[in-house]
Amino acid sequence: MKVFSVFGYTGSGKTTTIENIIKELKKRRYSVGSVKEIHYEDFAIDTVGTNTHRHKMAGSELVTARGYYETDILFPEKISMEKLLSFYDQDYVVLEGVTDYNLPKILSAKNIEEIEERIDESVFAISGRISNEIDSYKGIPVINSMDNIDKLVDMIEEKVFDKLPDFDANCCTACGYDCRTLGIKILKGEAKRGDCILSQSKVRLFIDDRKIDMVPFVQKILYNAIHGVVSELEGYKKDAKIKIEIGNEDE
Amino acid sequence: MKVFSVFGYTGSGKTTTIENIIKELKKRRYSVGSVKEIHYEDFAIDTVGTNTHRHKMAGSELVTARGYYETDILFPEKISMEKLLSFYDQDYVVLEGVTDYNLPKILSAKNIEEIEERIDESVFAISGRISNEIDSYKGIPVINSMDNIDKLVDMIEEKVFDKLPDFDANCCTACGYDCRTLGIKILKGEAKRGDCILSQSKVRLFIDDRKIDMVPFVQKILYNAIHGVVSELEGYKKDAKIKIEIGNEDE
Repeated sequence: MKVFSVFGYTGSGKTTTIENIIKELKKRRYSVGSVKEIHYEDFAIDTVGTNTHRHKMAGSELVTARGYYETDILFPEKISMEKLLSFYDQDYVVLEGVTDYNLPKILSAKNIEEIEERIDESVFAISGRISNEIDSYKGIPVINSMDNIDKLVDMIEEKVFDKLPDFDANCCTACGYDCRTLGIKILKGEAKRGDCILSQSKVRLFIDDRKIDMVPFVQKILYNAIHGVVSELEGYKKDAKIKIEIGNEDE
Repeated sequence: MKVFSVFGYTGSGKTTTIENIIKELKKRRYSVGSVKEIHYEDFAIDTVGTNTHRHKMAGSELVTARGYYETDILFPEKISMEKLLSFYDQDYVVLEGVTDYNLPKILSAKNIEEIEERIDESVFAISGRISNEIDSYKGIPVINSMDNIDKLVDMIEEKVFDKLPDFDANCCTACGYDCRTLGIKILKGEAKRGDCILSQSKVRLFIDDRKIDMVPFVQKILYNAIHGVVSELEGYKKDAKIKIEIGNEDE
């Protein structure tokens, strides 16, 4: 799953850029999901007096409204990007306004000042109103999503890679870097997505069908714990493929 | 996770009953989630013109609004109860208006006619306006959730069991019944939740795709070894379905 963010100040043309990107990705036959980050203290999607709001006020910790044509799960907290993205399985997920996560980004800007204030190494393209004035900023292409959506989505296809985990340096540097640094190196062409050790890993864990990333250290504990038990059983072979399921049958 | 439904016609006092149940369950220190089934063709939680609505109109297949204090995942379809409940991990989940799922139920009714029209074997208590008039209907207690919430929640504690799977008879009758029939037998005291075979054989092991039978004792060792490691990871839930694969990718 490829995930990227479009960010920038209000009024820079962010949502328009995203609309054009989503339409073009769909035209190219990709499945697409999206997230809108809302920087507005009083935001609440549900309105006072609805039955779901009454559930919440009575103390329900997770409320869903399920209608004929939509199902809205309302978490009463800001959930982490990691957890949120575990609900997605589209080819591309576009995030609007998310900056605190390890991702390739498109900066949307009105003018040069906004670019200078917000740009960082994770930005691979610039869009928004400024694209009426310039074509490039310090080697980064500035692309208008109205006239030139083809070129912008070509860049997305070229640059955006399968989401990396977001471990910090204390947690995993098995590839030689923390995840953020590896991400930037991939964008610059100095590393490959496949350099992430987790994509080479042998132990895969699913909880309720969602894949859980494990740092190599934890993988090894799990590997040893399982082999320790299983190797005593009739039918065991060294290097055999092992699968264990706990809980409901898949079938 | 214990799941039950409160159902009945509009105006019978359903939401009030649920508010009182949620408050009392919370008072008894349980965690509680809820689902409101909306039987209204035009229901849409998001309003035209919001940025999230623009994402959806552009073709985004799954849209989330993430604010400072809430995260709203908006699925553009009615998702199955099975999938929906996989997002929950509370002690109790109360469903409002869900009838098409294998669950113990409380019927909310205004009058005897409504009881007669809607009652079935999965109903273990009756509430709503009718409870001002009668105390019992054919052996089923009729309880007012305003005056007598203690008694209603005592019944919930007594009757509601950990959610059964919802397999039909073609899929699994390992206990001797389909899941719906077993559910009704549990409510009547003619069977126990533990009769479900799936809750007895919790660990399945495959070596090179061959199923290896394990005696309960070995199952338990493997179960404990895996839970010992996995319970420390982000994403872990008690009673979650866990799958681990070691070796070649299946894909």
